Amino acid sequence: MIKVVKFGGSSLANAEQFKKVGTIICSDEARRYVVPSAPGKRNSKDTKVTDMLYQCYDMAMAEEDFTKTLGEIEKRYMEIIKGLDLTMSLDKEFEQIAADFKAKKGSDYAASRGEYLNGLIMAEYLGYEFIDAKDVIFFDNNGVFDADKTDAVLAQKLKGIQKAVIPGFYGALENGEIKTFSRGGSDITGSIIAKAVKADIYENWTDVSGFLVSDPKIIKNPEVISTITYKELRELSYMGATVLHEDAIFPVRKEGIPINIRNTNSPEDPGTMIVKNTCLKPEYTITGIAGKKGFVAINIEKDMMNSEIGFGRKVLRVFEDNGISFEHMPSGIDTLTVFVHQDEFVEKEQSVLAGIDHVANPDSVDLESDLALIAVVGRGMRQTRGTAGRIFSALAHANVNVKMIDQGSSELNIIIGVSNKDFEAAIKAVYDIFVLSKL
Amino acid sequence: MIKVVKFGGSSLANAEQFKKVGTIICSDEARRYVVPSAPGKRNSKDTKVTDMLYQCYDMAMAEEDFTKTLGEIEKRYMEIIKGLDLTMSLDKEFEQIAADFKAKKGSDYAASRGEYLNGLIMAEYLGYEFIDAKDVIFFDNNGVFDADKTDAVLAQKLKGIQKAVIPGFYGALENGEIKTFSRGGSDITGSIIAKAVKADIYENWTDVSGFLVSDPKIIKNPEVISTITYKELRELSYMGATVLHEDAIFPVRKEGIPINIRNTNSPEDPGTMIVKNTCLKPEYTITGIAGKKGFVAINIEKDMMNSEIGFGRKVLRVFEDNGISFEHMPSGIDTLTVFVHQDEFVEKEQSVLAGIDHVANPDSVDLESDLALIAVVGRGMRQTRGTAGRIFSALAHANVNVKMIDQGSSELNIIIGVSNKDFEAAIKAVYDIFVLSKL
Repeated sequence: MIKVVKFGGSSLANAEQFKKVGTIICSDEARRYVVPSAPGKRNSKDTKVTDMLYQCYDMAMAEEDFTKTLGEIEKRYMEIIKGLDLTMSLDKEFEQIAADFKAKKGSDYAASRGEYLNGLIMAEYLGYEFIDAKDVIFFDNNGVFDADKTDAVLAQKLKGIQKAVIPGFYGALENGEIKTFSRGGSDITGSIIAKAVKADIYENWTDVSGFLVSDPKIIKNPEVISTITYKELRELSYMGATVLHEDAIFPVRKEGIPINIRNTNSPEDPGTMIVKNTCLKPEYTITGIAGKKGFVAINIEKDMMNSEIGFGRKVLRVFEDNGISFEHMPSGIDTLTVFVHQDEFVEKEQSVLAGIDHVANPDSVDLESDLALIAVVGRGMRQTRGTAGRIFSALAHANVNVKMIDQGSSELNIIIGVSNKDFEAAIKAVYDIFVLSKL
Repeated sequence: MIKVVKFGGSSLANAEQFKKVGTIICSDEARRYVVPSAPGKRNSKDTKVTDMLYQCYDMAMAEEDFTKTLGEIEKRYMEIIKGLDLTMSLDKEFEQIAADFKAKKGSDYAASRGEYLNGLIMAEYLGYEFIDAKDVIFFDNNGVFDADKTDAVLAQKLKGIQKAVIPGFYGALENGEIKTFSRGGSDITGSIIAKAVKADIYENWTDVSGFLVSDPKIIKNPEVISTITYKELRELSYMGATVLHEDAIFPVRKEGIPINIRNTNSPEDPGTMIVKNTCLKPEYTITGIAGKKGFVAINIEKDMMNSEIGFGRKVLRVFEDNGISFEHMPSGIDTLTVFVHQDEFVEKEQSVLAGIDHVANPDSVDLESDLALIAVVGRGMRQTRGTAGRIFSALAHANVNVKMIDQGSSELNIIIGVSNKDFEAAIKAVYDIFVLSKL
């Protein structure tokens, strides 16, 4: 059995956390490939090492003296090394980093040093081989991740290595320059490695005991989802639920490798299993609820719209030409509503409205702003009749006015539009009816 | 006060019906402009005069002897004339029609004679002036109704005429040739005249006491809608509810002239008022329910679809290129479902699927056929919280599986997709909860 284990920044913020991680790894022989993040916050007022690195590099770019800031970063690593009773030195590494910063080697390079250094310490601490991500993770010259090349090189390289530490978050362009994924990208590195070694499971260790049914900022102590499918996760992640980087599921999804979200601070918790398919019935009818505020509805009316072939396409073209992606497009017979992100829309508003007038010659166009979209997601909804009825009864009971409903034939989710001001009440109402009342 | 009154074919099928119509017109001085249809069926096995005319003209086109068939048509008119104790003769008219049929003057001309002759009788019976529609209703050379020219000529002509009969259904092209509206087009003629004379009301007399809340073939003795807005009517008409020709509302809608659907056989019934706006609260939360069977859902999945600007537009383009209009397009984050008419889709199926593969490169495309769409329409839904909850609870209770939900921000209607086999049960469930249980 092969397990790839990725640890987030809070799991590696200091020596104490490192020790927990060491215990977790050593307790299971299968945990052969380790992907560390950079040290995260030690407390709520702390700064992540990655942010310190960006800040330090900005000073280098401005040709200011960054010695002190870099020294603080070095101090954080030395504290970890000392706390772990290791004898290694990072002097040479920090000399190199200082030289590279002066040479303006790029902010991606700067940011990547957090994982790189943490990887060196982790390898030393575990006695695992260190593999620099720049030698196994590749991007093409447009900065797009090169999955085929990476997979071939990684698979070949790791075939001969029983146990290794590979820092997350970064790789290299064709010319060898360092390139990072977007923030949180260590999740992606772990997934890529799990795919390359055909792991049995990809364990993603963080500071929560799994993926939560809803946002803890809205619901007090929400339940943990025990099993979720990739598709459900995609829907929830897109709507703002975050544990895992949203691109992290694609590499393992193709191979059907499950992801297990685990809590470094509570390793006895089973966490959340993210799987391709499952016959496991979800505990509740719904798997999760997530949502986002800040949408605008553009409501277009035109007599005989429905008999005008191409009307919807022409309207969408206007949004596309303005670089705005649409979220949902519910339609009646003479009406069409387009939901878009408010922040994308506002600055293009007049251009979009003029474009709609021009191509579609509508009778009227109304705007409604400050709307929120909520996704109620669950593979169990397909089997359970009346889910929609319960959702909308609960919302009515909570005095929430439903502005939009969108359910496609996948029956995996129902999207509900409400006013921003009703957002929290709506999520609470849905959570209560399905999770607390177990309806 | 000016009322334009249009009478349908069943209201003018024989002398007895003509007498009812005469009484209705004479009972109100304001009923100054009368638009008759052609005589309809006298009983369920009878043939409409318009159908007899088409049949007769087909014989003329095939150069067969049509004398007998035309004689039967003449007999129907003579029965009416005799039954009304009129002394007029239609010999000259039928001679002309026979000559024109032989000269192959066109099937539009042939069909129009039903209204033309009925108009002559009606004018004689009422003592109203007869105005041939060919002199006041105009089409351009592409056969498109010329609203501006018609309105100007009609308004001028009728200014000097206190009371007139204008046959429905037809007008003339620029070259004087007769051109008809689509079947049921007398409704449109009435609306055009109401607009031209700035009528206070357009009365549309038929054989039912108004627009019904739902289809009497599904719901036994459905309630009559007392007041409905143009918009609500459009939604219900499109979904299959028929009383009025769907194009008939546009001329009066622009002027804000209400339409009153009345029953010739029960003139004491108030019928249905079709209005632009109303502060009248509807009797029930919903105004009406209508639906159609025979839709297909094309369900498209693709990872990261949502971040691909133009995805929806490209997919719609494929349908457009194949001449298929889409009905609804609900979307999730990685899924998009397009609902189309099954009969339009089947013959283009492979071309559409190939087109989607080509432009959108989806991960998967699934088809689900034999679906029905149901529109629950009502201006009252906006004021009443929980409508959606009640609808979906009722459907769950009736064991109906909801395949699709679409509600835009107009909040005027909710569109629900179900299997064809659940269609009647779904409509009954919604009718019961809102109309019978008055929830």
